[in-house]
Amino acid sequence: MSWSAAQYVNFEAERTRPVRDLLAAVPNVEVRRAVDLGCGPGNSTEVLAARYPGAAISGLDNSADMIAAARRRMPDTAFDLVDLRHWAPADSYDVILSNAVLQWVPDHETLMPALLSRLAPGGSLAVQMPDNLEEPAHRLMRAVAAQPRFAAKLAGAAGSRTPRRGADWYYRLLKPHAGRVDIWLTIYHHVLPGGPDAVIEWFKGSGLRPFLAPLDAADTEAYLAEYRTGIAEAYPTLPDGTVLLPFPRLFMVATR
Amino acid sequence: MSWSAAQYVNFEAERTRPVRDLLAAVPNVEVRRAVDLGCGPGNSTEVLAARYPGAAISGLDNSADMIAAARRRMPDTAFDLVDLRHWAPADSYDVILSNAVLQWVPDHETLMPALLSRLAPGGSLAVQMPDNLEEPAHRLMRAVAAQPRFAAKLAGAAGSRTPRRGADWYYRLLKPHAGRVDIWLTIYHHVLPGGPDAVIEWFKGSGLRPFLAPLDAADTEAYLAEYRTGIAEAYPTLPDGTVLLPFPRLFMVATR
Repeated sequence: MSWSAAQYVNFEAERTRPVRDLLAAVPNVEVRRAVDLGCGPGNSTEVLAARYPGAAISGLDNSADMIAAARRRMPDTAFDLVDLRHWAPADSYDVILSNAVLQWVPDHETLMPALLSRLAPGGSLAVQMPDNLEEPAHRLMRAVAAQPRFAAKLAGAAGSRTPRRGADWYYRLLKPHAGRVDIWLTIYHHVLPGGPDAVIEWFKGSGLRPFLAPLDAADTEAYLAEYRTGIAEAYPTLPDGTVLLPFPRLFMVATR
Repeated sequence: MSWSAAQYVNFEAERTRPVRDLLAAVPNVEVRRAVDLGCGPGNSTEVLAARYPGAAISGLDNSADMIAAARRRMPDTAFDLVDLRHWAPADSYDVILSNAVLQWVPDHETLMPALLSRLAPGGSLAVQMPDNLEEPAHRLMRAVAAQPRFAAKLAGAAGSRTPRRGADWYYRLLKPHAGRVDIWLTIYHHVLPGGPDAVIEWFKGSGLRPFLAPLDAADTEAYLAEYRTGIAEAYPTLPDGTVLLPFPRLFMVATR
């Protein structure tokens, strides 16, 4: 997945809040080494560094655009272009953070235990993933993609996310490898000024990417016009001109 | 509603976490006066005092048992026996906290604006309410209460909670009276050791109260036996002997 760093840093306050909420739930231990898997443009890494000012912080991402943006943002932090599925560090970590990334990575049955094995004793794996595939914004992405004009080009778009699993599934997966597992789901209600277009702008930086990437300019315009009609209905504009965007996110902190 | 302070302080860590999460979302201003509406045995008041060490803190509750427990816990804090529906303070507050209380209080349409009117400029109303009436634990309370043996005695039990409303409803109610409204819903997944009995113990301190209060000893035993059968099915015991209790809670911070 190629990401647009410029698009993603819009809505930064809203996108950074889950990282803060996630790290607030990590048990307090001395943290010497912490890593941000899928660091994006470094906004989550910045929160990680602020939480553990004495720790050696590093970040990795599989997007060169994102790594470049992260290096500009935090010039003294080590950022590396790595696919986290092939991450094989020599060291163990006290905190492994992965914020809004693992929903793009398959095989959680093997991935999660592998990540836990990289933790030092007492260390924590802290993961947050959007859990919004059944929200109207995502249902509409798929519904428009199924229309005849787009169906052939977008046949693979919906499959780029890993299957959605519940808290119970992750608890059962993580618990045999961890002393303590803390799982919760939060539905934030982001207040977006600007009506349905603001909702579309939000998802242009994330969920819409695999649906727009295969389309040429004319198809993109047609797709977004159809999508906008559905969005305007599903997310009504409030009397003050804003739109409430409910956004469910699944959080887990597994501590060895 | 008469509450058992002794029962309620079981599961204190789990019940205190939402208060911490709630107060973490209150914008930082100088807080001189803060009040805890429905303070219970003082666990939420203690979190409030820790967050605002320089502030004058007070608490009120309509249960003498709870007020006595709160005074034992925090002897230097002002606790008063007051029904918050008739609360008419002379002063304004920088923070008004109400944690896991307003679900028992009717008429939110008028209550919420009235509470907001007690805020000093820049002050925040911070509310958390369980949003679990559609969870299996609550559905089962009502299903057992509808059985012939209990129906007459428990006809009014389910009505003791105020109607369930969504985040959107509260946003629309609060926004005309507040500069900023932050609403979210979190489903905690409490890990309870002890199987289905632990789930029952949890609700004995809260949701089960209006269902058990009207029953004599024999009916209570019969009610709980029926309830336990349903709970054991809805909340399966995990391989490690624990039970996951998903617990949705609605949060709102409205700032003037």
